[in-house]
Amino acid sequence: MELLKQRILRDGKVYPGNILKVDSFLNHKIDTSLTREMAREFSAIFAGTGVQKILTVEASGIALAFAVACEFGVPLVFAKKSQTKNLSSAVYSACAASYTHGCQYDLIVAKEHIAAHEKILVIDDFLALGEALDGLFGICKQARAEIIGAGIAIEKGFQGGGDRLRERGLRIESLAIIQSMDSGSIVFRD
Amino acid sequence: MELLKQRILRDGKVYPGNILKVDSFLNHKIDTSLTREMAREFSAIFAGTGVQKILTVEASGIALAFAVACEFGVPLVFAKKSQTKNLSSAVYSACAASYTHGCQYDLIVAKEHIAAHEKILVIDDFLALGEALDGLFGICKQARAEIIGAGIAIEKGFQGGGDRLRERGLRIESLAIIQSMDSGSIVFRD
Repeated sequence: MELLKQRILRDGKVYPGNILKVDSFLNHKIDTSLTREMAREFSAIFAGTGVQKILTVEASGIALAFAVACEFGVPLVFAKKSQTKNLSSAVYSACAASYTHGCQYDLIVAKEHIAAHEKILVIDDFLALGEALDGLFGICKQARAEIIGAGIAIEKGFQGGGDRLRERGLRIESLAIIQSMDSGSIVFRD
Repeated sequence: MELLKQRILRDGKVYPGNILKVDSFLNHKIDTSLTREMAREFSAIFAGTGVQKILTVEASGIALAFAVACEFGVPLVFAKKSQTKNLSSAVYSACAASYTHGCQYDLIVAKEHIAAHEKILVIDDFLALGEALDGLFGICKQARAEIIGAGIAIEKGFQGGGDRLRERGLRIESLAIIQSMDSGSIVFRD
């Protein structure tokens, strides 16, 4: 998506350790207009797939996921992050690791909020190693829901998470895939 | 707001310890249609106040705050919760306590995302003791921004946080104020 790529080039900041900071428009301060444009793009990409629910994970994916849910006219469920080891039997849970923060956490969704055979589209702002996304897919499988795929704003292609999921036959659609950002210079995948 | 009150009566669940669970439409699974109606209501309530930015706190306030930001055509900033004690000089921070979880945490906003004299409307899904809200107001003051007030979906009036803030001259507008929920029966304030 050209609009997003241009914005990343203009306002994104690259830090050591392959950190891309886009908190001026995507995940701390949120540009509502850009977010709605991205949602419309996902609405076109996943048109005709019969989306019944959007699933994301707190916190930075929620705004985009909400905008996508509005486009499809369906509810949004966001998985909660928990470090508690005492999980209730009333929740689906999956372990995930954060690339930027390093810590392990559990993703949790109350069982009552995902139904068997429900067609789920996962939305998130970032995809790097793909562990959060894999956790969300895991929750869908536990619920015996139907995974349509995932829509991602920015994928760090060089970290391989997206391609590993695609090799497993999952549909992963990213609006901007970064091929490399060595020396602070951002190059997108064609 | 009658639509919200009816939904609380229909789908809200009261648990011991004055816990009101509304996670089937407000803060885990999100009803996008209701959320947009609430946003339109806030747009009417705060019309003419010159809102320039919406401020909320992760995670459950984000969807509603985003919808309100879209109504006003302004950016959204969400404060992050942090338990780290090593805060950067590049952020505003305020301490807050969660009524439901008991733990203390810091609210953090990067200084670059709030400007002096900017007109800020705070949006959140819940108001009980008001400590998160008070923290957000504190961040606005540190930034020397202009606080328009706060729009809240559900206020637990009997816990007094909203009224304490009103007594300080702050404009707090809640779409549903619960006067009592003894014995599991929800009564709204007129």
